[in-house]
Amino acid sequence: MLSKAVVKYIKSLQLKKYRSQHKAFVVEGAKSVLELLRADFELEYVFMTESFYSQHRESLPEGLAFDVVTEEELVKAGSFASNNAALAVARMPQLPPLRVNASELVIALDDIRDPGNLGTIVRIADWYGIGKIICSETCADLYNPKVIAASMGSFTRVQVHYIDLASWLQQHSGRFRVYGASLAGESIHTLHLKPEGIVVLGNEANGLRQEVAAQVNQLIKIPAFGKAESLNVATAAAIIMDNFRRNPL
Amino acid sequence: MLSKAVVKYIKSLQLKKYRSQHKAFVVEGAKSVLELLRADFELEYVFMTESFYSQHRESLPEGLAFDVVTEEELVKAGSFASNNAALAVARMPQLPPLRVNASELVIALDDIRDPGNLGTIVRIADWYGIGKIICSETCADLYNPKVIAASMGSFTRVQVHYIDLASWLQQHSGRFRVYGASLAGESIHTLHLKPEGIVVLGNEANGLRQEVAAQVNQLIKIPAFGKAESLNVATAAAIIMDNFRRNPL
Repeated sequence: MLSKAVVKYIKSLQLKKYRSQHKAFVVEGAKSVLELLRADFELEYVFMTESFYSQHRESLPEGLAFDVVTEEELVKAGSFASNNAALAVARMPQLPPLRVNASELVIALDDIRDPGNLGTIVRIADWYGIGKIICSETCADLYNPKVIAASMGSFTRVQVHYIDLASWLQQHSGRFRVYGASLAGESIHTLHLKPEGIVVLGNEANGLRQEVAAQVNQLIKIPAFGKAESLNVATAAAIIMDNFRRNPL
Repeated sequence: MLSKAVVKYIKSLQLKKYRSQHKAFVVEGAKSVLELLRADFELEYVFMTESFYSQHRESLPEGLAFDVVTEEELVKAGSFASNNAALAVARMPQLPPLRVNASELVIALDDIRDPGNLGTIVRIADWYGIGKIICSETCADLYNPKVIAASMGSFTRVQVHYIDLASWLQQHSGRFRVYGASLAGESIHTLHLKPEGIVVLGNEANGLRQEVAAQVNQLIKIPAFGKAESLNVATAAAIIMDNFRRNPL
């Protein structure tokens, strides 16, 4: 059973303030919790339903400490409207310091505030084998439950670093090619894109901030064939990463 | 001012039952309402704030009948948490009968129930110049407020047809190449994709239904470079359409 105090603690972790204070975050749903348990996170709590347990018994790590609870208890503690599987509270891992190799492809996000978009981009990065995302400090928080949910477990494999993006780029842009997504850029269908460097994506409404755009070597755009004026930033990230990866040299 | 009866009517249109009964739907937010007003829809109501009016006065159609209301009234009537711009009620247009040309590229969706995904796919279709989407009857409803919102005005330009997808494909598959997205398909990076035919995307959890998969000539997949097990269906639609359009013959 989930005690009142634990429910209150888990609920508090929906807010960034309490996540930062406790250095902990919540993971919900079958797929995400299974990926969490397979990865190397320190766990505070694991709750699962009887049916989740009997379905996944074989793939649970040996010696895992967990409690069996009801679906109603999971919904009461978590942020999902329904959850017949599992919920866990994990400690935020300590990220290694941000280091980018010259031969690496990295995504940088400037002011991406929508949690669903950030989570989807984490999943896309994981699909395309991109290990690091560099976020401006105004981006959504990785440990927001909506980001974790949209990443579908990929948060366990992709490092998300929060920094002052403009000054980081300024300090390091000599070492990498910096691409910036912009409707005024060159078409990614005609450029020869080598999968190395930093690809910066900006806020859908405002584009790249000026101080970030100033660090870009090459503006790139997704060619349009119809009449939509723009694409969602996660959609754009996916198409651009696919174009970078299609010529793996 | 928005009368109680009108608020009640607009609220009722959040449910498919009442939308079907009244053959009307709601459009909210600056971008979507502006696109609606530019397109050829029959309008029942147009409400806008003073600030929206003064900002867009010049681009409003001549002779447009509308009422000026407050932000609070828009929020009260609509489904958005905030809306300082506009809300309109439009009549559902009568779609022409579904006809696909042999030289046309069309998206077909099998059981895509998430409204945000459907709306995002409508926007992607519009970006890539795809005029028709064929939906199985179990897909989300185009006129669901979340679909309209996610399409960002592209619902005015893309025809979305609801049909019995498996039997339609069975009747017509001799005339077109039918592609099906599947993790077991051939890589879209190595196939030479001519932008013609039907591309069928299935439900993320269950894939293509068997009776739909039976009509597919060519299974295709997005190559993975990392460890994510899947992509969101809207993300997949975007990457696949980009690959079809990059060699425009």
